Parts: sequence; structure tokens; C-alpha cells
Amino acid sequence: MNRDVWAEAIGSFFLFCTVIGSGIMAERLAGGNMAVALLGNTAATGAMLFVLITMLGPLSGAHFNPAVTLVVRLRGDLSTSAALRLIAGQLAGGIPGVWAAHLMFAEPILQLSGKVRTGPGQWTSEFIASFGLVFVILGTIRHRPQAVPASVALYIVAAYWFTSSTSFANPAITLARTLSDTFAGIAPSDAPAFIAAQLAGALAAAVAGGAIFAPEEPAQ
Amino acid sequence: MNRDVWAEAIGSFFLFCTVIGSGIMAERLAGGNMAVALLGNTAATGAMLFVLITMLGPLSGAHFNPAVTLVVRLRGDLSTSAALRLIAGQLAGGIPGVWAAHLMFAEPILQLSGKVRTGPGQWTSEFIASFGLVFVILGTIRHRPQAVPASVALYIVAAYWFTSSTSFANPAITLARTLSDTFAGIAPSDAPAFIAAQLAGALAAAVAGGAIFAPEEPAQ
Amino acid sequence: MNRDVWAEAIGSFFLFCTVIGSGIMAERLAGGNMAVALLGNTAATGAMLFVLITMLGPLSGAHFNPAVTLVVRLRGDLSTSAALRLIAGQLAGGIPGVWAAHLMFAEPILQLSGKVRTGPGQWTSEFIASFGLVFVILGTIRHRPQAVPASVALYIVAAYWFTSSTSFANPAITLARTLSDTFAGIAPSDAPAFIAAQLAGALAAAVAGGAIFAPEEPAQ
Amino acid sequence: MNRDVWAEAIGSFFLFCTVIGSGIMAERLAGGNMAVALLGNTAATGAMLFVLITMLGPLSGAHFNPAVTLVVRLRGDLSTSAALRLIAGQLAGGIPGVWAAHLMFAEPILQLSGKVRTGPGQWTSEFIASFGLVFVILGTIRHRPQAVPASVALYIVAAYWFTSSTSFANPAITLARTLSDTFAGIAPSDAPAFIAAQLAGALAAAVAGGAIFAPEEPAQ
Repeated sequence: MNRDVWAEAIGSFFLFCTVIGSGIMAERLAGGNMAVALLGNTAATGAMLFVLITMLGPLSGAHFNPAVTLVVRLRGDLSTSAALRLIAGQLAGGIPGVWAAHLMFAEPILQLSGKVRTGPGQWTSEFIASFGLVFVILGTIRHRPQAVPASVALYIVAAYWFTSSTSFANPAITLARTLSDTFAGIAPSDAPAFIAAQLAGALAAAVAGGAIFAPEEPAQ
Repeated sequence: MNRDVWAEAIGSFFLFCTVIGSGIMAERLAGGNMAVALLGNTAATGAMLFVLITMLGPLSGAHFNPAVTLVVRLRGDLSTSAALRLIAGQLAGGIPGVWAAHLMFAEPILQLSGKVRTGPGQWTSEFIASFGLVFVILGTIRHRPQAVPASVALYIVAAYWFTSSTSFANPAITLARTLSDTFAGIAPSDAPAFIAAQLAGALAAAVAGGAIFAPEEPAQ
Repeated sequence: MNRDVWAEAIGSFFLFCTVIGSGIMAERLAGGNMAVALLGNTAATGAMLFVLITMLGPLSGAHFNPAVTLVVRLRGDLSTSAALRLIAGQLAGGIPGVWAAHLMFAEPILQLSGKVRTGPGQWTSEFIASFGLVFVILGTIRHRPQAVPASVALYIVAAYWFTSSTSFANPAITLARTLSDTFAGIAPSDAPAFIAAQLAGALAAAVAGGAIFAPEEPAQ
Repeated sequence: MNRDVWAEAIGSFFLFCTVIGSGIMAERLAGGNMAVALLGNTAATGAMLFVLITMLGPLSGAHFNPAVTLVVRLRGDLSTSAALRLIAGQLAGGIPGVWAAHLMFAEPILQLSGKVRTGPGQWTSEFIASFGLVFVILGTIRHRPQAVPASVALYIVAAYWFTSSTSFANPAITLARTLSDTFAGIAPSDAPAFIAAQLAGALAAAVAGGAIFAPEEPAQ
């Protein structure tokens, strides 16, 4: 297996483990105040994203997200086989990350979520959240590449709060969250609509970002 | 439409959507503890400002704020027509951002705020908050331009807390907030005094900052 | 008046205004949960410190603190008259900052604090907090000067929590806080012991930091 | 005594003092909401780590952690005697840091913790937390060394939340925490299993990180 796949697998392990684990910790400690729980979940997720993208970006691009990998493929920066390899790494590392969180918190390892997350408001949330994520990646890489780790991390910090779905914005993490009946879970039957909205948002951003962040032309 | 207008429109869309959306999320989850709600609103707004200014600053200056655009115009760094174009972009992008937040949270799209925000304390707050914002922009651009995204974001983080108005400091966002009867709203009849205080503070900072951050003269 | 004095005055205005104002906001909103209030107070203070030091450091050193100015004087990097000028600027700008916070929150402008802050635990806190602050400034300037704004801001974030006094660590802010009978106040009769502990800690750090962060000698 | 030992001792003093002191402050103020307490503890610890690593990294590597020192030794970047010296400095500075926190908060100086922290979930937590910490250090030093202070600090911010043990990840701090019967304490009888899990995780990461972050070979 190549180094880029390992990077996606280990990064997705820690990212998905953080999303699930910090959700469990936050809900257990928050005494019913879900805004406090979301603050803890937000801080942990944003912090871990900065760390992982800083460290693993040079190896694989640090996508941890099939929607991002798809956009990179469509822009011609990855071959199809490399893209499939990265996505396989994301799932092969990320799903054990969910199970590791369950193990650490003495939860049953294998779970299926019963948490309903559905409706036009949440689908719109996933479309906008994913649009913004891809748009931010394209714009920041274009104008200030060294700020990508901080920008992606802080974008997700904001998106946990400005969307009603708390911004999954990632098909792999959506699948992984169906395997956890905890704070961050989603019922399996609700996952396809989330994933469709995420892919639609990501593709729309690829078009919009491609136009707005294109290299400048000679005159206007 | 030019690229700078798109940058102001898309940036204002995400910024105003974040202010309104995170306010709704925070209030819904906070169980009545408004300090916890303000923490969530603060984290989301500060994070999004860093992201947007980093990415869009090179295209349009990343104002998202007519008071800032006015100061830049008065300093001679923009033509009048360019300034008007940017302000049009701010409103044309920002107001749909409010509506998108309503859509995501399954609120009625079209609302008018009934939230009273008035009195000398709040007007003083808007004057000081806007003075500080423009002063920080002028000083940071002068001495450490690459720190502008972090400085503006963190200034607003502080200003959400040290002013009694939670620091709107932006005429466009003031108008947009009249269209949301949620946590971040303001009654339309209270908006003109806020906007007047904001413009007064911004202009005062343009004078003060122009003096203090002027290039150094040969001797003293 | 010279530009460095203006920088100390305006910076102290915004810093002290932030400490007092965010304390009032936090206490009013926190519904009695003082840890939530301290989180808001901490976020605002740390954010503002980063902003002010980034912007004003090149003009005056961005001390906003007579204990720091004293150490810089003792190291020979300032004349006595310049040091006195900076300290005058800190008080002349900082005290109106307290009053501005009162004005914004519709509190009586002129107040005297009745808040008891005394005892060996708090004096030890002020000694350690001030030692750490000066030590951090000396070490960071020596090894990574561009990190001074972030380091000082984050040091104070930590110190608000690891000391029992919430780390004033600044004689000027201690005086200013005697003028506010709010969350951040201190009774005038308790101020002298705080200031003595602060100066002792700062001087100890000047000695320790001078030794540890001295330029390396040829061999050992 | 050499400068590197002083750096480890002073850094460990402030780090351990922050962990214990902010835990006491957080628990006293949080009114029973332990998620709010953990937010305060997290903010203080992460902030202090950034500050200490920035300032002391150039003198000693800023380990403050025998597991990290062991890995650096095994990679051949330290002699055995230097490694032992650094570990001695960590304990000689860190334990008084615990006592200083007790003094500041008017607690009895000498305490033994009665807080039970045991079981496979917590041991797995310490293994994963320590694996991640060492992996992050190796990867960040390899790809973006100037980001080490932010990355280590933010990794610990995340790890306080995604592990059920709140991530000690440090044998010296584990020993020191046995001496405090407060929020951050651990019963002495529970410490050996924690330390064993930490060392196992650190060594596993030394192997994995050594492979993944090795310099690239000519072709693949």
C-alpha cells in the first residue's frame, strides 16, 4: 500500500474517532445543555483537523473526504485509480476510528444509529456546508496555501454552528456515523439524502470556485 | 459582474448566514443560558471571518462591510464606482445569506425582527466597536498585513463581549439583521441609529488611524 | 505627545475596556454559572491582546503594563523618561477604558469596587502570573519574536484559569479595576498587595529570564 | 545544571501547574456542569502548551514528557545521559508545579489523589492518545516544523475530549497528578497501568511514524 493511502487511513481514523469520541464525552458531561456539548465537540474537531492537515497534507492532500477527492479528480489533479485508492483508505481507516471511540468509552463496539436527521432544512444545510468546504479549499489553495489547515479547521468550526445539520459535509464520515448510536450518529436510512446533498454542494463549488479563483486573464 | 463583486457577495452570504444561523443554533441549544449561546455565536463568527478574509482578501479586500468600504474610498484606494459596486455586492449576497439560514433551520424565510436594541449604551457600543474595527484594519495592514485575517476575526470575537450591543459594527449586517426575528435580529426602527453610530465611529477611526499609522517622518 | 504614548494609551483603552466590559457581559448572561462567565471573559481578553500587540507592538512595544515597562527599562532598552511616558499613557488611556465600558453597559460611570481579593493564595497567584508573563515575553522575543502576540495572548488565556486571582499581572489594570464594582473589580484596599506581588514576580522573571535566555556562550 | 534541564523544569512547572490549577478553578466555578469545567481546563492547557513549546523548544525540545524524551532517545537524537537529565528536570520542575497550584488555591500542599481512573476503556484511551501525540510530533517536525507548537497544543485540546481518560499521555504528569486530590488527579494505584499504556502507545508511534514519515526514496 502506498504512503498516500496510509495518510488518508490514519488521518481518517483520528478524525472520525475525534468526531464520535468528543461527541460522547460532551454529551455525557454536559448535563443536558446541548450548546455546551456542541462547544466541546466543535473545539475537538476543529483542533484535530488543523493537526491532521498540517501533518498529512504533504503526503496525500489530507482529504479524509470522498467529496473532496472527487473534486480533485475532476480538476485533473489525481488519476481515477489514485482517487479510488484514497477513498478506500478513508473508509478503511475511518470506520475503525468510530469503533475505537466506542472502545475508549466502554460502549458496544458495533452499533447502528437510530438518530433521525432528515428534512429539507438539513439537506439544504449539507448542500451549503459542502459547497462552502470545497469553495474554501479551492480559494485558500489559490491565494494562501499555507493557511489551508487553519482555514479548513475554522470553516468546520463555523459550520458546526451555522447549519442545522451540524455540517457533516463528508460522505465517508456520514457512512461512519451510521455505525454509532451516540451524539454524532445518523440513522442509516437518512444517510443517502445527506450524501446526495454533499456531492451536489461539492460539485457546485467546483464549478463556482473554478470560475472565481481561476488565474487572472490579461485584461477585463 | 466583476470578480471583486462576486467576492463581496459570496463572502457576505457566508458571513451573514453564519451570524444568523449560529445565533439560531446557539439559542435553540443553550437552554436559556445566554452566555453559552453567545460563546457559540462568537466562535462561529470569528472562525468564518478568518476563513473568508484569508480567501477573498486578494480579490476584493474582503470588506463585507460598507463602513469599511467607505473608509477605503475616502483614503483614495477605491474609485467611487468601485465602492458602490462592492456595497451592492455586500447587500445582494448578504441578505440571501440571512434567508439561507432561515431555510436551513426551517424558519419562515421572510421575517422582520421585533428585537429592541436601543439607548445610549448601545449607540456608544456601536461607535466604539466600529472605531476599533477600522483602527485595527488600518494598523494591521500598516504593520503586519499577513495578520489581517486573524486580527479582524479576533477583534470581533472580543467585541461581541466587550460591547453591550454585541458589536454589529457593519451597516450592511445591520440591515440584514432586521430581516430575522431570531437571536441576532434588530428591529427595523432601531437600525438607523445603529448605522449612524457605526459610520461615525468608522470615520473617527479613519482620522485617528491615519495620523497614528502614517509612515514615519524623518525626525521628531 | 509622541506616537509611542498614543499607542500605549489607545491600546490600554481597548484592553482595559475589554477586561471590564466582557466581565459585565459575561456575568449578566451567565445565569450564575461563573465558569461560563470566565470563558467569555477569557476569550475576549485573549483575542484583544493578540490584536493590540500585533498592531501596536511596532510603535511602543505594546506593553499596556507598567511591570513590563519597568523590566524593559531595567534591561536598558528604554530611557527612564520614555518609561515614565509609557506608564503615563497606560493610565491615561486605560482608566477611560473602564469608564467607556460602564457607559456602554449603562452602569454608573464612576464606581469604586467592593470586591475582596486578598490572602496568600491570591498574592502567590499574582507573583507566579507576573513571573510567567515576563518570562514568556523575554523567551519569545529571544527565540521567535513574530510569535509574541499569540504567546502573550495565550499565556493570559491560561493564566485566567490556573491562578486563583484570575491573573491581573499588571499594576495599571489593577488600579483601573478598583474603579469598577463589577465582575472584574478589586477593592482599592486590596490593590497594593496585588501590585507588590506583581512587581516582585516581574523582577524575579527579569533575573531568571535574563540568565536562561542569554545568548549562548562559546562552549560549556 | 545545563540550560536544557532548566527549560524542561520551568516548562514542566508551568504546564503541570496549569493542568492542576485550571482544573481546580474550573471545577469550583462550573456549578456541577463538568463539560463547562472541561472546556476551561482544555483552553488553559492548550494555550499554555503553545506558549511553552514556542519559547522553550529551541533550548530543550520542550518535551515536558518522558515518553517523548524516550522516543527522541531511541531515534538517536539524544544521548542516554541527556535523556535522563531531561526526565529528571521534568519531575523536579513539574511536581512543585502541582504544589504551587495547591498553594494558589489555598488547598493543602501535600495531597494524594483518591480519584479512580481505571479499566480497559481508559487504558485504550491512554494508548491511543500517546500514539497520536508522538505521531503528530514526528509528522509535524518532518513536514512543517514551525507548526509544532500549534499542532501539539491543538492535538491535546482534541485529545482531552475524544478519549475517555481526558488524555494524560505523559508519565511525568501522571505521577504528578497522583499528588493532587482535585479535578485532574489520579489515584496512585491507577498510575502504573496508565504509564504502561502511554509508553506502549509512544513506542508504537515511533515505529509507525518512523515508517510513514521517513524521507522519500528515489522511486516507487
